[in-house]
Parts: sequence; structure tokens; C-alpha cells
Amino acid sequence: MAQSVLLTGAAGRVGEAILGGLADDHEWRLLDRDPPTDDQPGEFVVADITDEVAVRDAMDDIDVVIHLAGDPRPEAPWDSVLTNNIDGTQKIFDAAVDAGVEKVAFASSNHAVGSYETDERTPELYRTHDDYRLDGTELPRPSNLYGVSKVAGETLGRYYHDEYGISVVCVRIGNLTESHPPIDYERGQAMWLSYRDCAHLFDRCIRADYDYEIVYGISDNDRKYYSIERARDVLDYEPRDNSAHHD
Amino acid sequence: MAQSVLLTGAAGRVGEAILGGLADDHEWRLLDRDPPTDDQPGEFVVADITDEVAVRDAMDDIDVVIHLAGDPRPEAPWDSVLTNNIDGTQKIFDAAVDAGVEKVAFASSNHAVGSYETDERTPELYRTHDDYRLDGTELPRPSNLYGVSKVAGETLGRYYHDEYGISVVCVRIGNLTESHPPIDYERGQAMWLSYRDCAHLFDRCIRADYDYEIVYGISDNDRKYYSIERARDVLDYEPRDNSAHHD
Repeated sequence: MAQSVLLTGAAGRVGEAILGGLADDHEWRLLDRDPPTDDQPGEFVVADITDEVAVRDAMDDIDVVIHLAGDPRPEAPWDSVLTNNIDGTQKIFDAAVDAGVEKVAFASSNHAVGSYETDERTPELYRTHDDYRLDGTELPRPSNLYGVSKVAGETLGRYYHDEYGISVVCVRIGNLTESHPPIDYERGQAMWLSYRDCAHLFDRCIRADYDYEIVYGISDNDRKYYSIERARDVLDYEPRDNSAHHD
Repeated sequence: MAQSVLLTGAAGRVGEAILGGLADDHEWRLLDRDPPTDDQPGEFVVADITDEVAVRDAMDDIDVVIHLAGDPRPEAPWDSVLTNNIDGTQKIFDAAVDAGVEKVAFASSNHAVGSYETDERTPELYRTHDDYRLDGTELPRPSNLYGVSKVAGETLGRYYHDEYGISVVCVRIGNLTESHPPIDYERGQAMWLSYRDCAHLFDRCIRADYDYEIVYGISDNDRKYYSIERARDVLDYEPRDNSAHHD
């Protein structure tokens, strides 16, 4: 069944992957600070997510929110992630609960746990024979202030789920590239997420039933140190790509 | 050996407990938004922790920071905890690292995990025969936005430790009362922290060696659903009080 979906940060790369795969599958309301440069598969709202009134208006008649908006730079300064990622995400969850939205899929990041990649573990961690896996039950260890802000978003999701019952899934997105996995970059190959697996994963976030979940968003790479078992079990995520199957 | 300690939020209740027990044991620099109303056991700086310049000045020649300042109200609104607790704590960690401070003890809260107290678990959870224990390895589940802000402070501590090597201990403080444990309040009795155990616990945070730790700050109550084993093991915390030993 087609759902009415609000996609924040629609003009970014993850939004591009999602809309590229799912434009015709749901009723889309797209939101971004930047106006669109070409035709869009739905209503487009130009607004900043820190604009509380605009965010509340955008939630009207929405079933599911996919919240991607925020400063996407791993090296983003504190003031920016405090405002755009932490405060912005609180405003999204708060408005979603008030509007009676059923589910929020929150774009978290591999940077929420980047400091597990210690000097002792790398580069072995990035190789096929290494069986170390992060699975979402480990405590966060962000590798930068951007990662701190993503953990704060996950924690906000936990709170809004526990307090108000809204379904929340946090997707720790790996290394998203459009066609080819990263070249000569073992870490990126291990956490590669193809565009079509990204679209499929967020489709499952729209359709599946869940309470509160943290999952890793990567393709089914031979190299991996993030488990995708939870995404398979809870969301019926069935990735089709694997960074090892590209030259 | 006496340490040079910066105590933020010195005029609050936790500060009162700490200074009541340890006034003569360390060299204190006290910081609070509110000026003191009586004699103090050290230099007193009147400043808000969101004042970056004042915070940086206050770190000069400091060995250890005990960071208590922030909005202490469980019902505090988001805007206040975003500014006072999340942004304020980032400024403390950032300035501490830049000043070469060795250790930061961060006052976290039982509200960081308050949503583990589900309808199914309570009130049994608060009773002596129940052996459910939170021990700091569980994922946070804050019960309010104040709790979210405390988790964000813990996450900032994790990042600043991993990135810069500064020692960080997060103390999830229970129910602190001066003389008598809470009466007719099972939850409060289970997480009671006496003033003298509080002072002793933060003395251990000043003196012990650790990397990054999350510990629970409660007395050795017969009733308890927070483990104090990690505080015993890492900090040599030896509480002397027990809410069961009061009528």
C-alpha cells in the first residue's frame, strides 16, 4: 500500500537514491532548504528543519517521515551540528508525534560508531577474513562531532518512541555511491551501500512494522564489519549488491 | 595528593554534597551562574558555562573538572537543555582538552535510563527481591528531554576521550538527599545517594585512574536496580550508607 511520506533533506544524496528507486511507489512530500532544480515526484516544500512552523505544516496527513536533513559533513563544526542535526531532529520528532505520524526513519551514520575502528583493529577490520561485527547493540563511539550529533538523534528517537509509542528506525548509513563501490578504499568497500539497496532499505523502513530499531545500512558486502542481520530480521531487508562483485 | 579541581555548578545540591565532604581535600575553583551567599573553600568564578571565554579562563592550571552545571530539572524544556546541558557540556569538554586537563567527571543522571522502568517491571524493580540490574553497558533509554541531554553529555565524553585521550567518568546520579533517604518512595530509596557517599564517590573520580567509564552513583542500598560494581572496581568506591538502614 502506498504511504504518504515526508522526505526531509530530499535534495541530498541519500534523498536522490531513495527517490531514484521509489518515486512511483509512495506519495511524496519533499522538504529541503534548497529549492529543486528539476521536476520532482511530489509536492516540494522549501524550508529549513529548524523552522518549527514549517516543519509542523509539512507533517499534515503524513504516515511516515524519512528524516535525512542536516549537515552531512563528518568534519562539520559543533555549532552547525548542534543546530541542524540535534535541534533540527528534535523538532522533527516532536512535530511527528504531535501530527500522529506512525513511523520515523532517521538517517544516522557510520560515524556514530567510528571510534571502534581503533589502530589495533584496522586495517584488518576492513578485510574479508575478519569476523568482528558491530550490530547496533554496542554503545555508540562517535568519531567526530557530526557522529555525536547522529547519536543524539538516535537517542531522541529512543525517547520519542518510549514516551509516545511512535515507531522509529535509525539507519546507520555506510558509504553510499551511485554506481561503483569506492576504489582503493577498503573501509568504503566494507561499508558500501549501493543506490538500489539504499532505496530498498528505506522502502522497508516505510512498510515494515517495528518499535525502536538501530540498523546498519550497507549492501551485502563480502567485506563487512557491520552486521545486517537486524535489518534482515526486522525490516526484511534483502540487499542485492556486494562490493566484491565489482572489479 | 591534593588536586586542583574546577567544580562547575558549585552552588547546586551535588556541589553542596561534594564541598561538604571534600572542602579541605583539594584545591577548589568553583564556578556557578549564581554568586555565592556565604564563605567558599576556594576561588569562586561567577559565569555561565555557555560563556566560552569564561570557561576557558576557568580551566587554567586545573587537573580535574567535575562538571555539574546545567539545568537540573527533569521536566526542563528542550531549549533549555539544548543550551545549558548539551551545548554547555560540549564547551566544557572542548576547553578541558585544550587546557590539558587530565580528567573530567560528568554528572549524568538516572533519567538517562529512566525508560527501562516500564509498567511491566515496576514496582517490582524497586524491591529487594528483584535482581534486575542496570550496569552502564545497556543502551541509554532516557525518560525525558533532560535525560536525552544527559546521554548527549555522556556521548560527548566518549568522543573527547576517544579522540584526545582525556579521562572521562560519567556518574548517573540517583536520588541525592542530605540526611534521610526518601520516605514512602520506593524508587527513591532504591537509587538513594547519601551526601557522604556522594562526596566520597566524586573524591574517587578525582583520584582514580580510568579511561572512559559510565557508573551509577547510589549508596549501597538493599533495594537497588543499578549495579555499583563498576564504580567499586574502577574507582574503588566504598559506599557506607544504605537506605534500608534508616527507619
